[in-house]
Amino acid sequence: MSETRNVSYSFLGPAGTFTEAALAQVPEARGKAWRAVNNVGEALADVVSGRSVAAMIAIENSVDGGVSATQDALASVPNLRIIGEYLVPVNFVLVARPGTTLADVRVVNAHPVAYAQCRSWLEATLPHHGHIPASSNVTAASSLLDGDQADAAIAPPGIDKRYNLAVLATGIGDNPNAVTRFVLVSRRAAVPARTGADKTSVIVELPEDRPGSLLDMLEQFATRGVNLSLIQSRPIGDAMGRYRFVIDADGHIQDERVADALLGLRRFSPKVLFLGSYPRADKRPIEFTSHYDDDVFIGARAWLKDLIGDDPSGT
Amino acid sequence: MSETRNVSYSFLGPAGTFTEAALAQVPEARGKAWRAVNNVGEALADVVSGRSVAAMIAIENSVDGGVSATQDALASVPNLRIIGEYLVPVNFVLVARPGTTLADVRVVNAHPVAYAQCRSWLEATLPHHGHIPASSNVTAASSLLDGDQADAAIAPPGIDKRYNLAVLATGIGDNPNAVTRFVLVSRRAAVPARTGADKTSVIVELPEDRPGSLLDMLEQFATRGVNLSLIQSRPIGDAMGRYRFVIDADGHIQDERVADALLGLRRFSPKVLFLGSYPRADKRPIEFTSHYDDDVFIGARAWLKDLIGDDPSGT
Amino acid sequence: MSETRNVSYSFLGPAGTFTEAALAQVPEARGKAWRAVNNVGEALADVVSGRSVAAMIAIENSVDGGVSATQDALASVPNLRIIGEYLVPVNFVLVARPGTTLADVRVVNAHPVAYAQCRSWLEATLPHHGHIPASSNVTAASSLLDGDQADAAIAPPGIDKRYNLAVLATGIGDNPNAVTRFVLVSRRAAVPARTGADKTSVIVELPEDRPGSLLDMLEQFATRGVNLSLIQSRPIGDAMGRYRFVIDADGHIQDERVADALLGLRRFSPKVLFLGSYPRADKRPIEFTSHYDDDVFIGARAWLKDLIGDDPSGT
Amino acid sequence: MSETRNVSYSFLGPAGTFTEAALAQVPEARGKAWRAVNNVGEALADVVSGRSVAAMIAIENSVDGGVSATQDALASVPNLRIIGEYLVPVNFVLVARPGTTLADVRVVNAHPVAYAQCRSWLEATLPHHGHIPASSNVTAASSLLDGDQADAAIAPPGIDKRYNLAVLATGIGDNPNAVTRFVLVSRRAAVPARTGADKTSVIVELPEDRPGSLLDMLEQFATRGVNLSLIQSRPIGDAMGRYRFVIDADGHIQDERVADALLGLRRFSPKVLFLGSYPRADKRPIEFTSHYDDDVFIGARAWLKDLIGDDPSGT
Repeated sequence: MSETRNVSYSFLGPAGTFTEAALAQVPEARGKAWRAVNNVGEALADVVSGRSVAAMIAIENSVDGGVSATQDALASVPNLRIIGEYLVPVNFVLVARPGTTLADVRVVNAHPVAYAQCRSWLEATLPHHGHIPASSNVTAASSLLDGDQADAAIAPPGIDKRYNLAVLATGIGDNPNAVTRFVLVSRRAAVPARTGADKTSVIVELPEDRPGSLLDMLEQFATRGVNLSLIQSRPIGDAMGRYRFVIDADGHIQDERVADALLGLRRFSPKVLFLGSYPRADKRPIEFTSHYDDDVFIGARAWLKDLIGDDPSGT
Repeated sequence: MSETRNVSYSFLGPAGTFTEAALAQVPEARGKAWRAVNNVGEALADVVSGRSVAAMIAIENSVDGGVSATQDALASVPNLRIIGEYLVPVNFVLVARPGTTLADVRVVNAHPVAYAQCRSWLEATLPHHGHIPASSNVTAASSLLDGDQADAAIAPPGIDKRYNLAVLATGIGDNPNAVTRFVLVSRRAAVPARTGADKTSVIVELPEDRPGSLLDMLEQFATRGVNLSLIQSRPIGDAMGRYRFVIDADGHIQDERVADALLGLRRFSPKVLFLGSYPRADKRPIEFTSHYDDDVFIGARAWLKDLIGDDPSGT
Repeated sequence: MSETRNVSYSFLGPAGTFTEAALAQVPEARGKAWRAVNNVGEALADVVSGRSVAAMIAIENSVDGGVSATQDALASVPNLRIIGEYLVPVNFVLVARPGTTLADVRVVNAHPVAYAQCRSWLEATLPHHGHIPASSNVTAASSLLDGDQADAAIAPPGIDKRYNLAVLATGIGDNPNAVTRFVLVSRRAAVPARTGADKTSVIVELPEDRPGSLLDMLEQFATRGVNLSLIQSRPIGDAMGRYRFVIDADGHIQDERVADALLGLRRFSPKVLFLGSYPRADKRPIEFTSHYDDDVFIGARAWLKDLIGDDPSGT
Repeated sequence: MSETRNVSYSFLGPAGTFTEAALAQVPEARGKAWRAVNNVGEALADVVSGRSVAAMIAIENSVDGGVSATQDALASVPNLRIIGEYLVPVNFVLVARPGTTLADVRVVNAHPVAYAQCRSWLEATLPHHGHIPASSNVTAASSLLDGDQADAAIAPPGIDKRYNLAVLATGIGDNPNAVTRFVLVSRRAAVPARTGADKTSVIVELPEDRPGSLLDMLEQFATRGVNLSLIQSRPIGDAMGRYRFVIDADGHIQDERVADALLGLRRFSPKVLFLGSYPRADKRPIEFTSHYDDDVFIGARAWLKDLIGDDPSGT
């Protein structure tokens, strides 16, 4: 029983956030304790300390881009591993205290990312509104009930089931296909088994002393036929103009071509952080040309071993 | 005289922000009207409408990275031009209502970027604090006087000269060399003259139908000896996995190698947005090997013209 | 009438060689004087001096490779231009003085290239033969009649119509599809008109001071979508390990992508020799992706010109 | 004793050739039988059959380039290995029957490569001479005594000690630094030990179905920091435009970076023929940046193994 008590999952709360919706997609998390935390740092600290077995954190939004706080936290907290990827469609409603009408709305409370994603609708519908930033989409809504200065809030659909709020408008996101990508992060552990529809995430620093080193880095993938689905620069932070790159590559570390690309990266870069290989949320099998099949790599190694191992008494 | 009335400059207010400090570096702006606006969109709208001749906006922070809102706004508002670059050292103080002590601080109001840059100090000094996000560094401080829930705020040095606030701690930024990069944006106009220490900014979309297209794009610069000081991906927003790249290249559009790289980009990419060529803030002359000197480009063109123009009556 | 007397064409003789067969494919050469010369140097000297309007010379054989003497001569004699390309199927017969039988043959006279192309047949049929090298395929045959040491000669089909020789065997070439590629060379003149099925030949030296410079050179073509049909290294001759490259590229100097690749080459290389753009012998239209169409290049230039030409009084 | 009788070395004869001078540089060949053969095919056949333990063959000349016959023979005869490299300075004298003067010379007998290397001197000194090709430099000279049609011959210095001939001119080669590179070829056997100043030779075919495949092939070397000292195309022979590449790379198959490049080549190419790793004739240690040191490769493999081997019970 004590075992079970330890098995909790952390997520950016409060209840009702998109992050919670992502966690709801994890079969292993069902029936376990879910810890709502306030930020990515807390979520990862829970994992590092063993308070939670894993944490669900947002890593990229199809409209707003990479979540810098997550990317930077993953780059700085050692011994973490991404073990799963989850997609949550993102849409928004405008809510207000009961009795408020659209015409009454002058100030809107919203998490900055949510605000950015509804900007067109807001500019068209409420051209003179002001904005108060909130720390989460749910907080934006709930603080309306605390009597804050805002007249309305941008919140996830369904918020009105949890709080006594009226929905003024639905589907106010500028992009109806918006989606947020979440990753489930645990302490360093066995890499999840290869499924054929996998993704490998790394964070790579470029060597300082070589011009064209980004090109050289990308060639480590290209010469092994490994496609990249994400490449994002983040400042290392010590000086303007020095970057690390957050990279998602198609395939699994147990795929020969990915393993070989990682070897190339490691030789090339002063710092490569392996964040994990894990099944893709979209379960789409990785496509690659047969030149880069495992067999080709294994055959080449056997060929080389045979050449090096030649001895004079042989054929 | 009516002319002079129109010459105003917009910046992200209120007075006292780092953006205002950047604008103070612009000789042409001295003695002109300065308009404090609430966000990047407003600043650029002022420029587009002609309300202001130019707007100062933050584009990158050495610790926090690219300013997404700025990058996305520049990608979507047509006919803008970056005409100057300015660097402002970034440091922070913790301020509170007079009488408050460090030991009293439970909730800190701060702009998210400022908050991120002081995280280590906060976690060490105030391990149990909460965070309320503000829309600007100055607003964070000034709202303390409006009696908001926060006990303290992160603000720029000198804030206590403007508001009746006590400084609880100085130099609380995690990186003493932190700097923010600002750009001055005008309507499309003549490109500023080449100084030899210039930067050229573009936003480039990758063609969809070619794998390895990021590599191909970077080669457009590499084969002309043009170094990049910034490359940052931003989602195009129509689907997960589709990116545009914000790029700062060394040199000026009137440098032959830069012009030729732009030609290559334009042929390669379905969409290239030229944001401008302008003097670098650090005034450091561009270094490049003599293989890529203007003379080499001009000589090659003369050679080619001579070859194509051959006629049978010639020698 | 004096004009007509000057219009002669040089070729590697004597009459009956494959080179003469190549010249027979040139409509302009019909009814003109044909000068049989002894080597490539003489042929080019005829062109340089004006003794002939053009010379037909072998440049590559599908079995034996590039003709070094031709490649080196083109690299060293200035102001020449390739104006046409011709293919001649290459096959061989074994001839002897009348009365000789295969069983009598101990020594075979043959031009070294012809000898190399018949080696398998010779080794199977005449395992103990010796070889005397000849300066041309026809000379090999004709010298049999001068009573030289050889018992048989390798010669082009049809040789027995010209000389009193018996054919001992036909079709003795090892590769029934063997073909030799010839080029027609004139003094520097107008580039032949673009046909859409053209080839451009250059000789390029690599810069000494850059490792990986062959890769860089090839990228000048690759980044413009220009395919290469031939790349052959030849020693520059001043030191072991220093090479120039003989290159045939798909397309015509008046194709924008080819012209731009030539510009790139010229900027990159200490020495680029343009040998000409001319219709391909096989008349196969050049294939290239629409990214590299002339329109794309022209559009990009117009775009750049517009950007550079911005002036403050404009929109 | 029977053992010793078998230990012979083959070389392109007759005695006095540059090939014999190369063989004289091989310590192991001293005091053993030397077999003079007529061509490269015979030399390699001796090795394959076991008649000789090794054969010395010319592979490249600093003026005339790669020796096609050698390159093609190495590509087609299986189970051979290059085990050593030797350089022989190449210079020439003009010899004639005693009593002949320079003014008498009308026809010159010379091996075509030797003839090519003396062309400038001949054209300046004997502008109206004719040329008879010989099968070796020594044969050219010796056949003068057989009363052939030639008046003089191009031969290696020292020929007058062996034959009753008069030297008409010395140092007639156009390039005083001309050198020929020879390789010693044995049957497949243990690779010679790594010396730090080694060369690795391979013959590589390009995949047919990929444009830009030469570029891709070169990147296999470039991404591992392996420099090439020779790259030469040879027709595969089945169709015009299909080539294999003869490549000399700096380093030894037991160098990690070279082994990894060979793996990359083998995965990429439909056919890679490893010709051997052997000490360079010039004994110049290979230079490469420390990024490509063995330790870097070994360290990267250990890192990868550790990542893949993670198990849940671990740290």
